[in-house]
Amino acid sequence: MGRPRTPLLDRERITTTALQLIDETGDFSVPRIARRLGVQTGSVYHHVDGRDGIVELLRERVASAIETATLDLAPWDAAVEAWARSYRAAFAAHPRAIPLLMTSPVRAPRVLDQYERAVTRLLEAGFELAGIMALITALENLVLGSALDLAAPETMWEPADSASTPHLAAALAAVGDHRADRAFEVGLAAFMDHARALCESGRS
Amino acid sequence: MGRPRTPLLDRERITTTALQLIDETGDFSVPRIARRLGVQTGSVYHHVDGRDGIVELLRERVASAIETATLDLAPWDAAVEAWARSYRAAFAAHPRAIPLLMTSPVRAPRVLDQYERAVTRLLEAGFELAGIMALITALENLVLGSALDLAAPETMWEPADSASTPHLAAALAAVGDHRADRAFEVGLAAFMDHARALCESGRS
Repeated sequence: MGRPRTPLLDRERITTTALQLIDETGDFSVPRIARRLGVQTGSVYHHVDGRDGIVELLRERVASAIETATLDLAPWDAAVEAWARSYRAAFAAHPRAIPLLMTSPVRAPRVLDQYERAVTRLLEAGFELAGIMALITALENLVLGSALDLAAPETMWEPADSASTPHLAAALAAVGDHRADRAFEVGLAAFMDHARALCESGRS
Repeated sequence: MGRPRTPLLDRERITTTALQLIDETGDFSVPRIARRLGVQTGSVYHHVDGRDGIVELLRERVASAIETATLDLAPWDAAVEAWARSYRAAFAAHPRAIPLLMTSPVRAPRVLDQYERAVTRLLEAGFELAGIMALITALENLVLGSALDLAAPETMWEPADSASTPHLAAALAAVGDHRADRAFEVGLAAFMDHARALCESGRS
């Protein structure tokens, strides 16, 4: 009785507020979260494990949009390719969170579980243990670079006059719709071909 | 006489200050540049073409570290590969500028000249006009994703206990030094193989 149905402060609301701040300004801070929620800074620290703890809550929130069932598809390359597409879509929804999440160590259990599943699939497919993290990271670099590009304008190059850059102007005039999607497809096709070739050579 | 050798305010100093703010906080604003330089906000606007103008000055500054002579190497694939390595190094020095520069249209003349050179080399190599911007963008997504990864910690995954993620733990234990460089090499090799195959098929 008299207790609010939605608590003023909980980890969900702190995460939502941190993500709003990042989407709007590119970063967050605990005092700014507190100000926006109308509470004392110390109250926020009661609920989370400091700034690093909020980063992991953010990671779980953004990564929760990745369809993890993709990693169960067969064969392994269909799984990796579908995971990459879903991963890109999840992070493209919050492009300004990408630099923060890419440059802090992954500790969120649910996200680590997703890496465990990816590593397991690649091991089962016959990849050598020593190269698996480099392979996954190469894919992530492509996925997250492409997610940032998806947040870029459709017209990304604006030469003042095409006379000084005639070949660029011609190449730009030849680009159709969905330029970011098409670039991602080129990068993903390159990665998948390379991964399949690596897998074949490892097996033989 | 009496005139300071270094003017209090010029485009170089505005650019340097904007880049410092981005390196430190992830973003810049004209009022914050003015505060740091000890001048009125309006004075900054006298020297630059608004916020967008500063973004292009930042783009020229960061891109000036790319060795453009790489684009003159022969054959074309040596040029593209060396350009990609130099491009990654230039942007890895300012990882927090990457999202800003990736999501605003390219208008800086010197940077457009670099794209002109890249497009020209690919056309000369026999690539089809319609696919060239997608190819360049795919490479940039990889390069800039990898530049962000280079700013990440050497230990990027920290499972609380390896019992729940045994395969991930094993894959991490098998990773040697320079994990980010090795992942970039995997991605770059995949891209170059794909580009060479595209080039061959386009010629035949």
